[in-house]
Amino acid sequence: MPVGLGGSMKIALDAMGGDRAPVGIIDGAVEAARHCAGRFGLVLVGKREVIERYINENGFGGSGMEIVEAPETIEMSESPATAIRRKRNSSIVTAMRLQKEGAVQAVVSAGNTGAVVASSLLSMGRLRGINRPAIAIHIPTRGGGTVLLDGGANSDCDPMNLLQFAFMGSVYAETILEKREPKVGLLSIGEESSKGNELTRNAHELLGKSDMNFVGNVEGRDVFLGIVDVVVTDGFVGNVVLKFTESIIQYINSLIREEVARHPLARVGAVFMKPAFNGVKRTLDYAEYGGAPLLGINGVVIIGHGGSSPRAIKNAILAAEKFAVRGINEKIKVKVEESRP
Amino acid sequence: MPVGLGGSMKIALDAMGGDRAPVGIIDGAVEAARHCAGRFGLVLVGKREVIERYINENGFGGSGMEIVEAPETIEMSESPATAIRRKRNSSIVTAMRLQKEGAVQAVVSAGNTGAVVASSLLSMGRLRGINRPAIAIHIPTRGGGTVLLDGGANSDCDPMNLLQFAFMGSVYAETILEKREPKVGLLSIGEESSKGNELTRNAHELLGKSDMNFVGNVEGRDVFLGIVDVVVTDGFVGNVVLKFTESIIQYINSLIREEVARHPLARVGAVFMKPAFNGVKRTLDYAEYGGAPLLGINGVVIIGHGGSSPRAIKNAILAAEKFAVRGINEKIKVKVEESRP
Repeated sequence: MPVGLGGSMKIALDAMGGDRAPVGIIDGAVEAARHCAGRFGLVLVGKREVIERYINENGFGGSGMEIVEAPETIEMSESPATAIRRKRNSSIVTAMRLQKEGAVQAVVSAGNTGAVVASSLLSMGRLRGINRPAIAIHIPTRGGGTVLLDGGANSDCDPMNLLQFAFMGSVYAETILEKREPKVGLLSIGEESSKGNELTRNAHELLGKSDMNFVGNVEGRDVFLGIVDVVVTDGFVGNVVLKFTESIIQYINSLIREEVARHPLARVGAVFMKPAFNGVKRTLDYAEYGGAPLLGINGVVIIGHGGSSPRAIKNAILAAEKFAVRGINEKIKVKVEESRP
Repeated sequence: MPVGLGGSMKIALDAMGGDRAPVGIIDGAVEAARHCAGRFGLVLVGKREVIERYINENGFGGSGMEIVEAPETIEMSESPATAIRRKRNSSIVTAMRLQKEGAVQAVVSAGNTGAVVASSLLSMGRLRGINRPAIAIHIPTRGGGTVLLDGGANSDCDPMNLLQFAFMGSVYAETILEKREPKVGLLSIGEESSKGNELTRNAHELLGKSDMNFVGNVEGRDVFLGIVDVVVTDGFVGNVVLKFTESIIQYINSLIREEVARHPLARVGAVFMKPAFNGVKRTLDYAEYGGAPLLGINGVVIIGHGGSSPRAIKNAILAAEKFAVRGINEKIKVKVEESRP
């Protein structure tokens, strides 16, 4: 293993995962390395030859990044469970192994989400008291953002899972979003506790009995107004909602472009409006928020968007650093321990 | 009963339901009556005194609308099951009774959705072969729109419910959206049939065996690109998605306003962009699409958005007319009958 142990923190980067890999991933790593010279070491995991060639061709040789060979790649469309068993030398599985062995303290991957989740679980296991890990997604809302979980790690959940998501989300909101006594909402279809489906009605009862700052059911409007700091839902609904949100932003964007093209005066107006549009774009752009942590794992794993730009990768690396430095896992363990009856 | 039987079609309107009732509802009814003079009769159901006073004060006396007294009102926050049992003289229950008795051929209500669904079921019952009715929502997408169901009538569904929603949605897409061999998609979190939760995996199998034009799982992006004509999901997910979609449109709108206010030149630009923004607004505005039919009921029921404007109410009335004239229920019955093994 060519990775040095001890010393300052190291973050492994899955160089082969995501729609723009490896080029977009390496570019992001270089940006992060320049931005935070010396604060942490970066380990690129993937096909050494491909990575070295790109680094040399672009004069990135001095950035001090290590490379760990991983000859296999798990494709986005592969079945996670099968892929992590068959491709033990894939970049994802290798990166997780590095963390398990203590050679790195965090992993960032924009690859196959299911494979990242499954291989995190297999390598590092769950935090004590947590039955299922959850993907924590930053939603850009009024008042500094909201964390939604689960963003897609578990498609079928029980009420206890949702309660644990709420614990983990509260710690995230305190530690990363810096909210005091974070307000927790349960995503449902009506404000009254009787509204929702069987899962949410049962989870509502559990959440109500907990010592968290549970404010009850919330709907889309409450989420974007930033009424809560943590939104709890199962991974199926969470993932559907995220993809809808992302799609409608793109759709509105394309509708505006088309309408502008149809109205000559609007084309002039659009030039003047550019700074305003850029402001909106900055608020809504997931690349600003740097990936989504997989909470509940006995380690630090940040999942990047499949379409991650270099900037998104850089921000995901910074998120991994923050996550490790602020000791979220320790805080989750304490919170879960305190909540035991 | 002061409502005449026979002759041309009559549509009952819940004058007391919705955030802007009764004024916004009556205004919408007057617009519809003027727009379609003589094509159908309108029956306003609600507090006669309040309705008559508003009609007289505004010189709407000549619009030929009938009034049926319904002294009680079901509030938006009331529990549907209890409310329809206790308030038998509410505007919702009375309107449904009129349809059951044949005095009207359709009902439009922007009131308590759960109460509208429950009271439709109680008065008129389900179509043969349909276990649960579903709310069919028009989503503004590329290619003439897509229908999503269930929009919120059933928070817990089984795979057979979803199959039946697909049948009903297909008929709606053929009959109202005028699509040939409508493409049906199952809302899920990945394209492969193995992706999703237990419900969608089982529903995928049933849909695959049906004679519908089933294209498989779809996500948000596919929906807004108009890749399918019918999107099938359970009422919990459907309702969450609709509210998120509506909320993010409002949120983006408010972000643009704020950014414009911060950039003086953008304020100039916004004036020039007005026609383009109006075009986008027209595309996305639910008021254009005139309410959501409750499919699977042995009658015609159109559910309006709680915040319905007079224009939304007018369009909901026109949707009710189209729905009744085009005989959707007969077509659903034929489709379900054909699909029996």
